Parts: sequence; structure tokens; C-alpha cells
Amino acid sequence: MVYSSEGFTWTPSGGVSHGLPTIGAVDPPTFFASSKDQVYDVIVVGAGYAGLVASRDLSTQGKKTLLVEARDRLGGRTWHSTINGFNYEMGGTWIHWHMPHIYREVSHYGLQDDWVVTQVPGGKEDYCTLTTGEQQRNISHEEEADLCGRVFRIFCNLDGNDLREKWKYVFGTKLDPKFAAEWDNLSCSDRLNQIRNQLSPEELAALEAQLVQMGGNSPDKIGFLNALLWWSLGSHTGTGLNEIALHTRLASGQSELHRRIFEHAASTGNLSYAFGYPVKSVQDENGLVTVTARDGTAWKARSVICTVPLNVLADVQFSPSLPVEKVEASRMGTANLCNKVHIDVQGPDYLSWGSLASPGRA
Amino acid sequence: MVYSSEGFTWTPSGGVSHGLPTIGAVDPPTFFASSKDQVYDVIVVGAGYAGLVASRDLSTQGKKTLLVEARDRLGGRTWHSTINGFNYEMGGTWIHWHMPHIYREVSHYGLQDDWVVTQVPGGKEDYCTLTTGEQQRNISHEEEADLCGRVFRIFCNLDGNDLREKWKYVFGTKLDPKFAAEWDNLSCSDRLNQIRNQLSPEELAALEAQLVQMGGNSPDKIGFLNALLWWSLGSHTGTGLNEIALHTRLASGQSELHRRIFEHAASTGNLSYAFGYPVKSVQDENGLVTVTARDGTAWKARSVICTVPLNVLADVQFSPSLPVEKVEASRMGTANLCNKVHIDVQGPDYLSWGSLASPGRA
Repeated sequence: MVYSSEGFTWTPSGGVSHGLPTIGAVDPPTFFASSKDQVYDVIVVGAGYAGLVASRDLSTQGKKTLLVEARDRLGGRTWHSTINGFNYEMGGTWIHWHMPHIYREVSHYGLQDDWVVTQVPGGKEDYCTLTTGEQQRNISHEEEADLCGRVFRIFCNLDGNDLREKWKYVFGTKLDPKFAAEWDNLSCSDRLNQIRNQLSPEELAALEAQLVQMGGNSPDKIGFLNALLWWSLGSHTGTGLNEIALHTRLASGQSELHRRIFEHAASTGNLSYAFGYPVKSVQDENGLVTVTARDGTAWKARSVICTVPLNVLADVQFSPSLPVEKVEASRMGTANLCNKVHIDVQGPDYLSWGSLASPGRA
Repeated sequence: MVYSSEGFTWTPSGGVSHGLPTIGAVDPPTFFASSKDQVYDVIVVGAGYAGLVASRDLSTQGKKTLLVEARDRLGGRTWHSTINGFNYEMGGTWIHWHMPHIYREVSHYGLQDDWVVTQVPGGKEDYCTLTTGEQQRNISHEEEADLCGRVFRIFCNLDGNDLREKWKYVFGTKLDPKFAAEWDNLSCSDRLNQIRNQLSPEELAALEAQLVQMGGNSPDKIGFLNALLWWSLGSHTGTGLNEIALHTRLASGQSELHRRIFEHAASTGNLSYAFGYPVKSVQDENGLVTVTARDGTAWKARSVICTVPLNVLADVQFSPSLPVEKVEASRMGTANLCNKVHIDVQGPDYLSWGSLASPGRA
């Protein structure tokens, strides 16, 4: 298996080893279906899900497509490494059939039976430790789920109907502008302050921890609109939220799905690709777009689809330039700041262990 | 707007008029992208969702595709007619983002804001009349929803966990063979008999009516496995079942989505089509498949995708022949036997009215 240069492992005997084996790593990292100096129909920047699906749709429809990616592997924020036969998810992990866009890809590539349910009750150490200030107590995962669902409902219930009235169409783009503006003005901390007196210390701690887990940042850095979107995506219930966020993952791992999309695109003969090329600039002039990598390599196309995430968008120079607000948002770096660590333990039957800390206790 | 020959209207002044105006009607009904006697890459039989999506995927990927349909319109069992500016859904109506395959098409064609919620409480006549033998009483729709959810849960709860244990992956194909065989042996009537003594007469009537509505037949003709599938698809809750089955429809109507898929396929230049051609036979010989219509017209292709529904499958002669069991199931004609009637009324504010009768009271 090919190694990505990302990530590292530590073992008592071997110490630190950099890089992880993954079927998501692309080797050799570049391939040009015809002359690399040709004018492509489209250059797609970024090989995460958005970029992969765009490249597949374009190349299968006969467009000469170049996929440019900074990393040495597929998947962007999601990928898995296989070590001793176990698939460790290194980023976004859980997917579900209530996520229609990704599930369509799961189904399209025949992975509809390739599931693992990650919540398996019954282990010896099957409990949640809830920490509140100086107090600590163990509760069952059922009690934890009830507690988290209940407090998230209070957090999001802006219409007395679990947000079902005011946010009817979860993927719709036309949220009532009045509500959108009002909610977008609040951080999760602001909203916590509005409902703080309705919650016990334990409830508040659980809610703060859940927000940290889902937003990957402290609540003052997470927009309230995000939390409302999660709630709507989760069918306006704690159970629904749990099912899309923590329930099922692909048995063969996220990189398996990336690989299938990528190979489908490559099989058309229309896909060229360049991995390991961070993009420095995207310049649109005289009807042609030039994409230039940090090492000076440049490609031209009639169109560009740029899928780089918000937190690195400001590192790319666009001409004409992006809206000032977008660049500012990118520089704020408010995106997910989590790190993911897998620890294999010996001893009693820890099937899995997670830890969340509310702000100030990280 | 073009008329389909299907359906009819009646008005006090104009009497009966056959055929309905719909953007789903295809006119002219045939088009051949090149010689109609060419050998196609694929012939797709049936222009419902399955056939439309197959034709679109094939033609956009450069395959010479012929779409053959018995009716004069797109959509098969789903379509809408527009009369005096109102979109009347004539078949399958409700869709939701928890149906990933159809929702991907909604999203792909930019219809993510094109929704109507069909359950709007607050009208003067906003209640449900529950009829049990000789008794009748009005309950609120909330009470109705609670009642139906509660009884459907009893009907489907085979594992003490709302079927979440034994039917984990709703689109998976590998249901435990033991359970599948056991459940597939029961009709909905058989299952009703197992739980009858747990239900009040009202609960039993509500459950029977719901089964009739969803299965489009009497409970002894509906496989229990179908009901379990609905329950799983509905997230193992009454609310979830209601949301996928009765909640949201496309404002512009089902035929709008069919039209967009069809026109996308046609825009490739690879799609030929023949509407108004019921297929008589599909014969696979010497590496070529011949599809012959009832009027004797025949086309040849390297492959055929046949999407005709089960209840008409036995009317097509296949060579080599289909499995005996499949033909037998088709001849039983156990598919949906519902008729759909829209009635416009004057007077108090009936926003909508539905009627369900349990067997023997139809």
C-alpha cells in the first residue's frame, strides 16, 4: 500500500513514524492524459469529495479535465489509513443515507452493504463520564443521548416546533432573510447565554461539550446558524442528529469511496491529475484561466472549479479577486480546529473512547 | 401545453373530457438521433424515474441510447397535470431529502427550493374522522399522527428496538436471511392477527386504513416485508414515516423533474426515443438484443435495460425467459390498485381531504 506523508504513528517499540499507509494515496502523483500544456476544458482544484465528484462528472461527460491537489492523496478532510488490517478514519468518519449527496455515491459504487454501526452497547466500560466543574459522574450512553438531545432541542427550538416551522427545507437556500440575518448575528456562546438559566450545570456542560465536538472550536467561534443547520439536518431530533453524526461508517473506509470515484473518472481517458501541487494563484484573463502552483508550474483551462476549503482560500491569489468578506472569513481561521488521535489500548474491553471538554478545559 | 391521453376531467358545465394537459407529454413522440435502424449501445424500456435516469447516465457518457415507452409521456407512475395554474399530482406525489436517490436528482437540477409542505394545520375543517364499525369520532391530525405512529410501531417492532437492531441499513441488500424468510412468509393480515389483541378497535381501524393507503391493496395482499421496509425507510418512527410519505412535494410538480432529466439526456445528441410503443418482446440472440413493439416495430441493441413495473412484466415476452416466480408474481397483479381522484370543492376551507377505508368498506 502507498503511504501518504500525512499523519504519524507511535509505538512503544518503534517510536514515532511519519506518514500512514492508505489506499487514498496517489502514486505516481501526476498523470497527463495528453499533452500537459494543452488547454483543458476545466481545471478542478481540490480532490476532496466536491472536487472528485466534479472531476468524475466532467470527465465522464467528455470534458478534458485536470484535477490539481495540494496533498499526496484523495479525500481532503476525509481519509482512512489501514494498519494491521484495521481501517482508522483520520477525518470525517460517519455518513448516513440521510445525507443524500454522499449516499448517492455510496449506492452508485455498490457500497450499500458496506456499513459498520459504530455504537455497540454492552461493553464492560460502556458509560459516559460527565464532568461539571468539580463534580464527575458516570451515566449510561442512553442517558447521555437523552440528555444531549434534550439540551440541543432547547438550544435550537426557536419556533416552539423544534425549528420545523422556520427551517422547513434543510437543503433549501432560501431561508427567511429576517431569521437568517438574526441567527447569523449570534455565536453559539450568545445563544448559550440566552438559555443558560433553563439548564442545570450538567446540562450546560453537556451542551457545551457537544458544540465543541461538532463545531471543532470554542462556542464563541461557532456561528449559531451552523448549530441550527445541524439540528435541521438531523431531522429536528436528538436521535436524528446522532444517526447522521455518530452512527454508521463505511466498513472499507472513506478512501475506498474516493478511490472508486477517482478510478471511474480516470477510466474515461479524459482525466489528467497533479497531486502534491498546492495552488498559488488562479487568474482569469482573456477568456482563459491560468492555475499556477507554488513551484511555478502553470496550466490553462476554459473554466476552473475551485473546491479548496474556506480556511485555506486566502492562501490562493484570485484575479479577479474574491469578495473581501470571504477573504476575511478565511483569514479568521474559524474552521474546525480539532485534532484526531487514535489510541489502541490493552486491557479491559474499551470498544471505543471519546473525550470532549468544554471551553477552558481543553 | 401538450395533452396526455391519460386521465380525465369532469366539470358541471363541460361534462367529461378525456386526457390531461401536462409538461410530461412528449411531442413529437418519436425522435431518432441518427438512423432508426442503427444498432444502439443500449435500449432502455420504460420512461419512469429508473428509465429516465438510466437514459441520462448512458447518453451523457456517450452511449447511443434508445428510450422506448408505452405511454405518451414521461414519468410512469408519477406525473402531474396543470389545470388553471394548479399542479395536480396524478400518481406518486411526496418526496423528501431522506430519499437519497431521488433527492440527488432534485438537487442536481436546481430544484432544492422548489418545495411545498402539504400538511398545513389551522383550517376550519382541520380534523380526521375515525370510523370504527358503527362508531365515528373526530380527532385532530396531531392525535391521528400519534395514533398511527404508535400502532405502526407495534406492528413493526420485532426486536424491542423499533426494528433498529434487525434492520439496520435501510438500503442494504443483505438482510439476515433467517429474518427475511420469516417475514416474507407473512402478509400484513397475518401480522395483524399476531398483534390484534394488543389494539383497541380504533387502533386496529387506523392501522388497517394506513396499510391500505400505503400498500394500495387489502392487507392480505400486502407482504409484511413491505411494511417493515416502509418503517425502516421512515427512520423507525411515525414522524419519520409521515415525513417521507406525506410531507413535501415539488411545487412545480413531478413532471418538471422528469422533463429536466429527459432534456439533459436529449441535449447530448445521443438519445433517441419512441413514446407510444408498448413493448411486446425482448429477445437476446447472438450477442444482440431485439426489442419489438406491439405494432411490429423492432430495434436492436447490444444491451437492454428493462424498467417496466412488476405488474406489466408478464405482458412482455422475454427470450431467454424470465424466472418462473417473477412471471407468476407479475400475473398475480398484487401491485397498487389505488385510483387517484382530485375533487375541487366550493364552500368552507377544505385545504385537502383524504379518505381511507379499511378492507370491506372500500
